[in-house]
Amino acid sequence: MEVVSEARSHGGRQLVCRHASAATACEMTFSLYLPPQADAGAVPLVTYLSGLTCTHANVTDKGEYRAACAELGLAFLAPDTSPRGEGIADEDGWDIGLGAGFYVDATQQPWSANYRMWRYVTDELPSLVAAEFPLDMARQAITGHSMGGHGALTVALHQPDRFRSVSAFAPIVAPAQVPWGEKAFSRYLGPDRASWRAHDAVALIKDGARVPELLVDVGDADPFLERELKPELLEPACADAGIALTLRRQPGYDHSYYFISTFMADHLRWHAERLR
Amino acid sequence: MEVVSEARSHGGRQLVCRHASAATACEMTFSLYLPPQADAGAVPLVTYLSGLTCTHANVTDKGEYRAACAELGLAFLAPDTSPRGEGIADEDGWDIGLGAGFYVDATQQPWSANYRMWRYVTDELPSLVAAEFPLDMARQAITGHSMGGHGALTVALHQPDRFRSVSAFAPIVAPAQVPWGEKAFSRYLGPDRASWRAHDAVALIKDGARVPELLVDVGDADPFLERELKPELLEPACADAGIALTLRRQPGYDHSYYFISTFMADHLRWHAERLR
Repeated sequence: MEVVSEARSHGGRQLVCRHASAATACEMTFSLYLPPQADAGAVPLVTYLSGLTCTHANVTDKGEYRAACAELGLAFLAPDTSPRGEGIADEDGWDIGLGAGFYVDATQQPWSANYRMWRYVTDELPSLVAAEFPLDMARQAITGHSMGGHGALTVALHQPDRFRSVSAFAPIVAPAQVPWGEKAFSRYLGPDRASWRAHDAVALIKDGARVPELLVDVGDADPFLERELKPELLEPACADAGIALTLRRQPGYDHSYYFISTFMADHLRWHAERLR
Repeated sequence: MEVVSEARSHGGRQLVCRHASAATACEMTFSLYLPPQADAGAVPLVTYLSGLTCTHANVTDKGEYRAACAELGLAFLAPDTSPRGEGIADEDGWDIGLGAGFYVDATQQPWSANYRMWRYVTDELPSLVAAEFPLDMARQAITGHSMGGHGALTVALHQPDRFRSVSAFAPIVAPAQVPWGEKAFSRYLGPDRASWRAHDAVALIKDGARVPELLVDVGDADPFLERELKPELLEPACADAGIALTLRRQPGYDHSYYFISTFMADHLRWHAERLR
């Protein structure tokens, strides 16, 4: 692993790192913020999964998480959203291929050669950062935006013991039912829709996966709300499952980092209470 | 004036606007954040001048000013750093021409056709935003970074009655004495160094310009500190002039927005106290 850049920020260290990934068979870049408290010992880790078209850099530049992380003593990990580089499969459109890994392990050619973001974010990257940095991996939280909100929900539903808390910003809650997810899952996972359920938060909950509670913010001016995000589908699923869902429709907010950064500190405070 | 984009953020409105500028004889783009308090009446205005290579977008994306502005009821105006577009004079190098207007009115060909950033930021842009938005122009503050810190200091020293407070992040305090400034001023203002003094904060203070106080932050790991910024030159100049200088050398910080965003809320709070 190579540290590409390091800068002092809000009393801590904002790192950008690169490493050869076995999961995706290419070089991957991630960012990690270590709060000042990490100088004295291991700190809890919040993993943030980004949305379509993003790299690690979008939330690192625009997420406004560092002040709250420094205050609360939280590390903040931001992976890339897909494999990258020469020879990686791609297709026209920003909602498939590069920047659009959807946090699954692709089973279909040509995607399966590199698009194994599930094992990257659930196994390889956590193992790497746990070995390299002062992180308390017994105290983890996960969150994400849009495609990354889908990632955060599905990862937490599969690994409820690993995460003390999960939240999301404008997540795609039922990718198997919406155009973005249908496009991605049909390419990455193939035509058998039964195989998609393991990567669909609403289907996972209906099939018995559980977390104690969920915090979800969506903007009511989000242009993707009705067609792609469908947060209302979480409400009956969580009610039936006994999952305490806090779903907040934020008036006037869109799908951008202006929305995410507004509520980032709220989410981090909510996670910090559960990571104590 | 055209509103290019508008987004809800931290309860207020982040605008990006474009207009035909008479000062620079081209289209100019700026960003303006209006806090929630602007819905009820005119709010004080903080103008932020950006550094070399920047547009309005850098601080808008990475400055982390909106949470504090929303809390304190401050509008935040971020102009571009130079004229832009086809046919605008330029030269190799990121420290001259496009992105490097140095907040002067160029007197030398070919620059004088468009590089009139002094009158743009001191006259045309304030008049435009005062006419278009609910701003209390009797309560203004100014700040900036690097080349924009130079801009903030020189603008405030020329117009002390207009600004209740002035601060800077890693400013070029004596451009007439350092390579960046010598390069820019020789191109824009010509070889007569006497004409440079009106755009050099340290020279202005020595020549009698006054503001009551200055807040300046610099990172002690800033790679431009010794060669280009030279904040230590402010200390004797301000001492002799009776200007209350608060110069903070922040340990470990560099020249980037990681540094600026760390201390942005501090500066805004300092300005807000003086804008009450």
